[in-house]
Amino acid sequence: MASDKTIGRLSRYRRILYSLQASGKANVYSHELARLARGTAAQVRRDLMVLGCTGSPTHGYDVDCLIESVAQVLDAPEGQRVALVGIGNLGRAVLAYFVGRRPKLSIVAAFDKDPQKVERVTHGCPCLPMDSLGKTIREKCIEVGIITVPAGAAQEVADTLCEAGVMGLLNFAPVRLWVPSTVYVEDIDVTMSLEKVAFFARQVKAGA
Amino acid sequence: MASDKTIGRLSRYRRILYSLQASGKANVYSHELARLARGTAAQVRRDLMVLGCTGSPTHGYDVDCLIESVAQVLDAPEGQRVALVGIGNLGRAVLAYFVGRRPKLSIVAAFDKDPQKVERVTHGCPCLPMDSLGKTIREKCIEVGIITVPAGAAQEVADTLCEAGVMGLLNFAPVRLWVPSTVYVEDIDVTMSLEKVAFFARQVKAGA
Repeated sequence: MASDKTIGRLSRYRRILYSLQASGKANVYSHELARLARGTAAQVRRDLMVLGCTGSPTHGYDVDCLIESVAQVLDAPEGQRVALVGIGNLGRAVLAYFVGRRPKLSIVAAFDKDPQKVERVTHGCPCLPMDSLGKTIREKCIEVGIITVPAGAAQEVADTLCEAGVMGLLNFAPVRLWVPSTVYVEDIDVTMSLEKVAFFARQVKAGA
Repeated sequence: MASDKTIGRLSRYRRILYSLQASGKANVYSHELARLARGTAAQVRRDLMVLGCTGSPTHGYDVDCLIESVAQVLDAPEGQRVALVGIGNLGRAVLAYFVGRRPKLSIVAAFDKDPQKVERVTHGCPCLPMDSLGKTIREKCIEVGIITVPAGAAQEVADTLCEAGVMGLLNFAPVRLWVPSTVYVEDIDVTMSLEKVAFFARQVKAGA
């Protein structure tokens, strides 16, 4: 099975390839892709070899073919369904960004405990009451959950999602979630990222 | 200088330590901290040794002392100022989360090009017009920038921030930014994270 890091890089390559495709570029060299992805050309070639793609020394790689090959790894042929829990500013930002962007990975329902936020459609996504979370996950065969509730509510949401059969969680809440060992969790820790940036910004200044 | 990864872990330890402190815990063992931070006890002890902290075999580490020691690394004694650019849903979510949370790292101004979003205070933070960005960065000695504008606007914002003296960027826009080599950039790539979660969720299901 491909590693965490490899899958992350394939996702990044795909975004770059889409933008190259949109700008009318038919071919790309490994060193160009590496530069755009902040990696090395050798790394790019290794990753693309895993996909079974080999470039030509004179033309590089065919952009459309690469996009197709990355999709064969990253996308489920039948698509995957995602639920988002917590329709605050962050939840709305994620909805606005994702809805309609990836045909094979669609946010099919959003949930909130605030009655004012539910029974409507936000960014094309139906917003449902929190007490229907487990039931909806099962009925719609949702495999992935995005948690955008406050820290104090995140564990309970994770419990409900996992009990209902969700196998992967993208967690924005600043807490460690306890989940069954078979469930994959990716944390997006904004505080940690900002503290890192602040620390290294200071080092640069001190070293200048 | 401490590595990227070490600084990330110190930030994560601090969040855990704050929550232990809030729950009235005075001491913590390396294995407890490791469990909460998804690391190993040996890793925790190495990281804390860098801080000059040694635990006692019978009582573990003093929580207040650890918080103080982490702060000496992560926080600038005089504090650091942050600007946020792009007051959409994501920008507002980041503002709501951060304002007032870290006394040594404060978002002192937010910017948007939409006149309707500026000349007001959002979550305690003054919102200013985009054309005052460079000037305000210089006047307020802002060292860190958070970019929450759409992909198409991110590079221009990064250029203005870097020209005005910002040394670190936290970038939420799904594009690679080109910055001077002395500027530290951390990307938060939500699409990549979600695609990873979806991929591994599928593997779990396939393997089950």
